[in-house]
Amino acid sequence: MFKTLPLKDIQITDPFFTARIDTARKVTIPYMWDTLNDRVPGVAPSHCIENFEIAAGLKQGEFHGFWFQDTDLWKWIEGVAYSLATHPDAELEKTADEAIDLAGKAQQEDGYLDTYYIVKGLDKRFTNLRDHHEMYVAGHMFEAAVAYYEATGKRKLLDMACRVADCFDTNFGPEENKLHGYPGHQEIELGLAKLYRVTGEERYIRLAKYFLDVRGQQPHYYDAESIARGDKPSYWGQLRYPQAKYTYNQAHKPVREQKEANGHAVRQLYMLSGMADVGEMAGDPTLVEAADTVFRNIIHKQMYITGGVGSTHEGEAFSFDYDLPPERCYTETCASIALAMTASRLNRIQPDSCYGDTVERTLYNGILSGVSLDGTRYFYINPLEVWPDRCVRRQDMAVDPERMGWFGCACCPPNVLRTLTGLGNYIYASDGDSLLVDQYIASKVKTNACGQEIAFTMEANFPWCGSVKITMDSAAAFRLMLRKPWWANEYTLAINGERVEAVLEKGYLVLENAFAAGDVITLDMPMEVRFMSASLRSPNYAGKTALMRGPVVYCLEEKDNGQQLWNLSVKAGEAQVSHQDSLMGGVTTITCQGLRTEGESDLYTESVHAQQPQQLTFVPYYAWGNRGKGEMTVWVRRG
Amino acid sequence: MFKTLPLKDIQITDPFFTARIDTARKVTIPYMWDTLNDRVPGVAPSHCIENFEIAAGLKQGEFHGFWFQDTDLWKWIEGVAYSLATHPDAELEKTADEAIDLAGKAQQEDGYLDTYYIVKGLDKRFTNLRDHHEMYVAGHMFEAAVAYYEATGKRKLLDMACRVADCFDTNFGPEENKLHGYPGHQEIELGLAKLYRVTGEERYIRLAKYFLDVRGQQPHYYDAESIARGDKPSYWGQLRYPQAKYTYNQAHKPVREQKEANGHAVRQLYMLSGMADVGEMAGDPTLVEAADTVFRNIIHKQMYITGGVGSTHEGEAFSFDYDLPPERCYTETCASIALAMTASRLNRIQPDSCYGDTVERTLYNGILSGVSLDGTRYFYINPLEVWPDRCVRRQDMAVDPERMGWFGCACCPPNVLRTLTGLGNYIYASDGDSLLVDQYIASKVKTNACGQEIAFTMEANFPWCGSVKITMDSAAAFRLMLRKPWWANEYTLAINGERVEAVLEKGYLVLENAFAAGDVITLDMPMEVRFMSASLRSPNYAGKTALMRGPVVYCLEEKDNGQQLWNLSVKAGEAQVSHQDSLMGGVTTITCQGLRTEGESDLYTESVHAQQPQQLTFVPYYAWGNRGKGEMTVWVRRG
Repeated sequence: MFKTLPLKDIQITDPFFTARIDTARKVTIPYMWDTLNDRVPGVAPSHCIENFEIAAGLKQGEFHGFWFQDTDLWKWIEGVAYSLATHPDAELEKTADEAIDLAGKAQQEDGYLDTYYIVKGLDKRFTNLRDHHEMYVAGHMFEAAVAYYEATGKRKLLDMACRVADCFDTNFGPEENKLHGYPGHQEIELGLAKLYRVTGEERYIRLAKYFLDVRGQQPHYYDAESIARGDKPSYWGQLRYPQAKYTYNQAHKPVREQKEANGHAVRQLYMLSGMADVGEMAGDPTLVEAADTVFRNIIHKQMYITGGVGSTHEGEAFSFDYDLPPERCYTETCASIALAMTASRLNRIQPDSCYGDTVERTLYNGILSGVSLDGTRYFYINPLEVWPDRCVRRQDMAVDPERMGWFGCACCPPNVLRTLTGLGNYIYASDGDSLLVDQYIASKVKTNACGQEIAFTMEANFPWCGSVKITMDSAAAFRLMLRKPWWANEYTLAINGERVEAVLEKGYLVLENAFAAGDVITLDMPMEVRFMSASLRSPNYAGKTALMRGPVVYCLEEKDNGQQLWNLSVKAGEAQVSHQDSLMGGVTTITCQGLRTEGESDLYTESVHAQQPQQLTFVPYYAWGNRGKGEMTVWVRRG
Repeated sequence: MFKTLPLKDIQITDPFFTARIDTARKVTIPYMWDTLNDRVPGVAPSHCIENFEIAAGLKQGEFHGFWFQDTDLWKWIEGVAYSLATHPDAELEKTADEAIDLAGKAQQEDGYLDTYYIVKGLDKRFTNLRDHHEMYVAGHMFEAAVAYYEATGKRKLLDMACRVADCFDTNFGPEENKLHGYPGHQEIELGLAKLYRVTGEERYIRLAKYFLDVRGQQPHYYDAESIARGDKPSYWGQLRYPQAKYTYNQAHKPVREQKEANGHAVRQLYMLSGMADVGEMAGDPTLVEAADTVFRNIIHKQMYITGGVGSTHEGEAFSFDYDLPPERCYTETCASIALAMTASRLNRIQPDSCYGDTVERTLYNGILSGVSLDGTRYFYINPLEVWPDRCVRRQDMAVDPERMGWFGCACCPPNVLRTLTGLGNYIYASDGDSLLVDQYIASKVKTNACGQEIAFTMEANFPWCGSVKITMDSAAAFRLMLRKPWWANEYTLAINGERVEAVLEKGYLVLENAFAAGDVITLDMPMEVRFMSASLRSPNYAGKTALMRGPVVYCLEEKDNGQQLWNLSVKAGEAQVSHQDSLMGGVTTITCQGLRTEGESDLYTESVHAQQPQQLTFVPYYAWGNRGKGEMTVWVRRG
């Protein structure tokens, strides 16, 4: 079993990500704090802090916002905590402390803390687990509490979190006098696992396991709960697909019997993350196996090439195998983050490069596309094809053709924040004798791992260049496991300039060595332009290709290639690559020969349109939409 | 100004349509009567007749069904009337008479007749013109009344209709003491025009014109009406396209200022039909021009190749120019019928072959696809591409992959019925000196036109063969105008075997002749297989082709070509044609050389899939889905 290295032990120096993390620290953290306090002009008030003030009795008023509005604060604190772990900032810490103090005043005698029910009436709490989000809110609070404790050493929020957890433990569980319910939006499971990890309190991991064990059992808790409430049981999907009852919540059958991803994508993936954590910590491999089965269904059959997941906006959900329409996707930023979370957890249990490959795919594509280069605007949905007119003028489209400043349901922006400030969580992991390098994000490490102090410096210039250089800053003896990305068909591994062959173990290049201080390990992986195809089982990509280079997915934008991108085709096989320092923060672009079909005609015509050569310019997908509104497509016809 | 020939004067002998009309008469009429009377096992009760019984005070109970449920009866009577005009049937006429008697008992003192408000409370009538359908119901009643009067000579329903019209005339109009509203679902305009045509009552055409003149004026009646009702004004489309307010009802601006098709497709096209009728009868060419402008927008920019219209199920609506997704269309059967209705009306005012071309396109494709070959099952939506799994398993799809027995909102089945039994309305028209042949539907005609008796026999075998033979059954002197279809690039016209050149006037071949009895006019139009392209402005058809032969659009079905039709491409240019008498009631199929991309792979792969030759079999689009559930596509990649 591997653990991630503590955030404090990693200093990220990566040229690509440093700028983004700095933007997150300097722009996003204060901007988001202002939105939570309803003081950003032109942005609809969040009411998040106000709700806490009302719940704490410091202010009169009504609750506003979603029933999970509290999570905006908890995710902000988690993001702040990760930032403080590596970039101490007394003023920011004071702001966070004050927010924690405020929340503390709202916490009830028995530990309960959810401003929605505190303000609206505590008699209603725990009556609608299916649709409301009390456990989801708690889970995010636990994540924030653990992060803040680990970053600052301060216990206040951690103690508050334990009281919340105790409250759930008092009210839920297998005992007859307790409720036998479980969350409609999973998250508390992984939160309880984190709380268990730092407190060692067995009740927490037991409760998390209970929530997973009882999920989807018959008679169905959501049926009973809704009838008791005077509601009808939910039949999400009844109309077109009756079997879909409770698939939205992944509660259609017991979790160990679920073999395919279903329903709301973030719920699905937070659940898999929780199953991995709980399975590992509670020693139940059946939970890990079940999580891995669904994870593999996703990456092999339900994932977009960008690492986006969720093929339909109806329910923000998975649909079914190979149904991956590029224009009608949901591919929520949060879902890609949740996919990375699941992958990194499964990897710590049984390392396999497919997990790190997935994290890499999401990080450089479907997650990063969610935020503008300047860090102030966000996509909720990350489409792979955009015709702006269609987005705006069709009533049945959910896709926005441009990033927005904020959302009423503001889950994605703080989720990106905590991913960027907590990026160190995805790079390394270690167990008793091995250290994994999962992401080639340049950084300086000084840590205790494999029973010794290990210090090294990793230099890299991902995603533009596939050369990695690790310099040992002190002597150490351990197994160094370097992930060989799926795209690195060829690679050269060397120690101190001398080529070495390494065993390939589950996709990792393993070097079993006693390293001397100053030893240099280099891994060179040429990044070629790849013309990708999709499985023939997927209907939307027949005759089309998507360009990748290293981990980066490329796209065509109207800005570079003119309108009606659908009339372009690309000649696969020939491509020029050039790095443009001044373009969109510095990107490597690809140019190819292509053809444009041209000409005006009747709506339907017998005449065959002419084709003219056109040079096509591809830019990284994550950077699209930063130069004004326009068409975009990832998949292009082969010409 | 042309008029259609009376239905009674036309005996349809067409091999293609006779079978369908017979099915409509023998299967659909009795089946539909049974559904209206709630006695078809397995079909949800319609309550249509029961509502009339309750409204007439013959039965206790509540109103059930949609607020336009009455129209199921009126459309049934209209369809029956057309059938009786050519196929007298005493028993059927008795059934219809009894239904009319029943409805008569429900009619109120002041002429009002709408069972929804009679049962639910007359105090609420005329308070929600925008969403409810009182005027729509009346319009269909007027159409039924006129048809029944013309078929049987019986005045009872016609008199009832006049009393309904009088009631509207008493309550609506420009006078200060009247309501200044207009229908949320257009239809009364064309109904009033028909009533005017047979009664000569000027008030009816004045009222129809008023409804069109006042439409979309400011201050907006629907705003005022909804506020008076205590409702919010409707903002259909507010979310994504605020300009769309009241476009759903084509009430966003005055009708003469509307240049593009918008909103609910059937509403739009019933309105255009009404504008053509009223413009002509009330002598207002600006109405006709405005209707023609929108009609041309549709056929040049918003019509599917099948003659289907309505690009989105959200609002069953037009979306915008060139937005024609083949899988996400609405293309309601009723909308294609309404397009044919509009086209034939505009053609009678200023004959132009583009109108008859449109009628032909809808008749042989998008209308006929709406009903199964056995006449018992119906499509509401007529998609151009179907992957059944996606239809069933995606919550955001509206398309059914198979025809259904009936619908809760049962507008399409009776609309197909009245189109088939009233097919004679689309074939011919005449004015003082000319007779138009618009559709090459074989028939025997004996009529008074162009100031004389004209009798002839038209033989044809459309849509499989382009040869038409008209034999004069008596001498007559008139201008014979034969529509040259858009697809007939080549043609040979002859009289008594001798080739003649005819003037081409607005797409009609004009023969100015004194014909002798026994004269034979032949028009031969070779039907070649055409590989059609779509305008490059439309994004969904790049690199694809659709096959047509004569007026018929073809498609690939899974049944003939295997699964994953998206992996097939067709070699344009070579095609074999063969007529198969025993296939689906007799169809001409097309076979072409094509390629199938084959092979299993990862979801995303660098490898290029292999292609194998495959012979492709295309069947007429209208006949698809009659051999079990499976994939279908009209547009195929060019290989």
